[in-house]
Amino acid sequence: MNQLIERRKVTARKEKPDSASLGFGKYFTDYMFVMDYEEERGWHDPRITPYEPVHLDPSASVFHYGQAVFEGLKAYRSEDGRVLMFRPDQNIKRLNKSLRRMSMPPLDEKLALEALIQLVELEQEWIPIEKGTSLYIRPFVIATEPSLGVRPSKRYKFMVVLTPVGSYYGDQLKPIRIYVEDEYVRAVTGGVGDVKTSGNYAASLQAQRKAEELGYDQVLWLDGVEKKYAEEVGSMNIFFIINGEAVTPALNGSILGGITRASVIELLKSWGIRVREEQVAIDDIYEAAMRGEVSEVFGTGTAAVISPVGALHIHGETIELNNGLIGEVSERLYETIAGIQVGKVRDSFRWVVEV
Amino acid sequence: MNQLIERRKVTARKEKPDSASLGFGKYFTDYMFVMDYEEERGWHDPRITPYEPVHLDPSASVFHYGQAVFEGLKAYRSEDGRVLMFRPDQNIKRLNKSLRRMSMPPLDEKLALEALIQLVELEQEWIPIEKGTSLYIRPFVIATEPSLGVRPSKRYKFMVVLTPVGSYYGDQLKPIRIYVEDEYVRAVTGGVGDVKTSGNYAASLQAQRKAEELGYDQVLWLDGVEKKYAEEVGSMNIFFIINGEAVTPALNGSILGGITRASVIELLKSWGIRVREEQVAIDDIYEAAMRGEVSEVFGTGTAAVISPVGALHIHGETIELNNGLIGEVSERLYETIAGIQVGKVRDSFRWVVEV
Ligand SMILES: Cc1ncc(COP(=O)(O)O)c(C=O)c1O
Ligand SMILES: Cc1ncc(COP(=O)(O)O)c(C=O)c1O
Repeated sequence: MNQLIERRKVTARKEKPDSASLGFGKYFTDYMFVMDYEEERGWHDPRITPYEPVHLDPSASVFHYGQAVFEGLKAYRSEDGRVLMFRPDQNIKRLNKSLRRMSMPPLDEKLALEALIQLVELEQEWIPIEKGTSLYIRPFVIATEPSLGVRPSKRYKFMVVLTPVGSYYGDQLKPIRIYVEDEYVRAVTGGVGDVKTSGNYAASLQAQRKAEELGYDQVLWLDGVEKKYAEEVGSMNIFFIINGEAVTPALNGSILGGITRASVIELLKSWGIRVREEQVAIDDIYEAAMRGEVSEVFGTGTAAVISPVGALHIHGETIELNNGLIGEVSERLYETIAGIQVGKVRDSFRWVVEV
Repeated sequence: MNQLIERRKVTARKEKPDSASLGFGKYFTDYMFVMDYEEERGWHDPRITPYEPVHLDPSASVFHYGQAVFEGLKAYRSEDGRVLMFRPDQNIKRLNKSLRRMSMPPLDEKLALEALIQLVELEQEWIPIEKGTSLYIRPFVIATEPSLGVRPSKRYKFMVVLTPVGSYYGDQLKPIRIYVEDEYVRAVTGGVGDVKTSGNYAASLQAQRKAEELGYDQVLWLDGVEKKYAEEVGSMNIFFIINGEAVTPALNGSILGGITRASVIELLKSWGIRVREEQVAIDDIYEAAMRGEVSEVFGTGTAAVISPVGALHIHGETIELNNGLIGEVSERLYETIAGIQVGKVRDSFRWVVEV
């Protein structure tokens, strides 16, 4: 593997940004990973190169027909100086699932994992160390064939870029306000909502803007067929704690199977908390909340790990949850997962990969 | 306007391909149009440049979150040497509709039209003259801001490229075989199916491949909610001639409002043929066909103008239509619209714009 990756040196290393100004996805490291695909040759030329512009023909199919998929995961620096990644194998599996759904060629999973590891190793000085910060890893694949025929491209680029990111919440978990969207639809069974393809995100922007204008942080999507059942939040899955049990929408083909979601389910079960993955009618949530049975609602995703929900706007009414405080289960999940990620909590599920 | 567009000269003009080998979207002309957008400056620097690669940061948002919209229209050379475009104002209107839906900044419609006209004028030698050939015009807008935040990009590029394209059918209209897709879904009300955004096309590739493997040319999509109602074909709208009346799915928010579709409706009405735009249940079509009441089915779109349908695969059965021949209405529509496009038939609707 080592020989496969040629290294071209950057002439000058960039200055590293101050950890307070990191934000999300604004600064990129010195190097990136690139590999090309051509129909006749398959995936070839894996390499680490300086972080530099991509040159594409104006007719490259990604610009016109949107074959583009991506992943997102994080690398952390543990207190004892090790570099840790959280379940990267799962991200690569999901990347391949996305590639197949979008008629794009899957990657060799071992090689892709090795690419992440080598790149993060090379760039480990870029991992910020303040609480809640990390090095975000963005693998993505785009269609590059210069042709306007509506058919799968015959050429692709797999790239990995790295960006140091700030703490999602600053010092402590801050509950978010969620708008249940009943006009716009994100995805529907038979579509591509269960994979990470670029078009899903462009399609969500207008609803997100509307929610913000109305004073909410994020949208909770309903199913596209009946607009009755909760699906997921912007880039998080959603959990409800009702009468001490956890309820989350089942993976029905139109929501993304989050890796944080899967980890939360495993953890909750290991703690003896029952988890139901099922259709979740938003009206049932409303009624349960009115009866005082909903003790916590939280989102799960790579960006924030656990995102407590403090308010839920449903059909014209805003329900305040848990007095705008962080619930007990949310907090315990956050401390456990974030702890495992930085090597502070014992990794009994073997989720962490050391670079 | 003229001064707005700076021309940088190509050093050598490309060789023009032989008209028999044109295909679709394989060859591009010497020049393209480019204009940039930045949040602070708005759209600026309209210019014609040599056709050349685009340089984008690997984190450019089009690669990750899919803000990309496009249009497609054609320029023709008339027998008396004029250069004609078909309803370009409609394409620019629709481009702006797509831009707004995808949270992208709309264009000045006059300037955009002028860009098409000036570029086509400069490149008019590239318009092929054989029957059925034309110069395909591809305006498109992509998000270019280097940032991984999931929010509308603050920078965009509007580009126009030109590609000489071959005759869709060779010498005569050839009926196509259509597979009614009842597993995959293209779009749903509340989504983005009614605009030309890149993600819609990537999402359709897998179903298209399936149809081809089963021996069909294209997919007919059903609605995403009940999978009962006809929506549209790959990149065409669909019409049924039933008992002498034309029936086509209404613009319900999940299908594209085709410009050929609108033109066909106007023409049919002007000929005294009744047109119903409504929900079209595929089972009703099946039954009407069994009773011998469906005399013609055809698709409408810029690529082929009118595309007669010779066979329709519905829920496991294949219905042959009109003995695989071209219907009378289809043929008359094709001759009229294609005739207007090349200046051979009187343009009583003022659809044609002379360059
Ligand atoms: C649409 C969507 N849902 C859910 C998630 C959460 O997935 P994960 O926990 O793997 O980050 C993400 C983020 O990746 C997402 O983009
Ligand atoms: C999805 C879709 N439907 C219909 C059409 C037909 O539209 P028009 O007649 O404007 O070419 C197209 C092509 O533009 C299309 O891409």
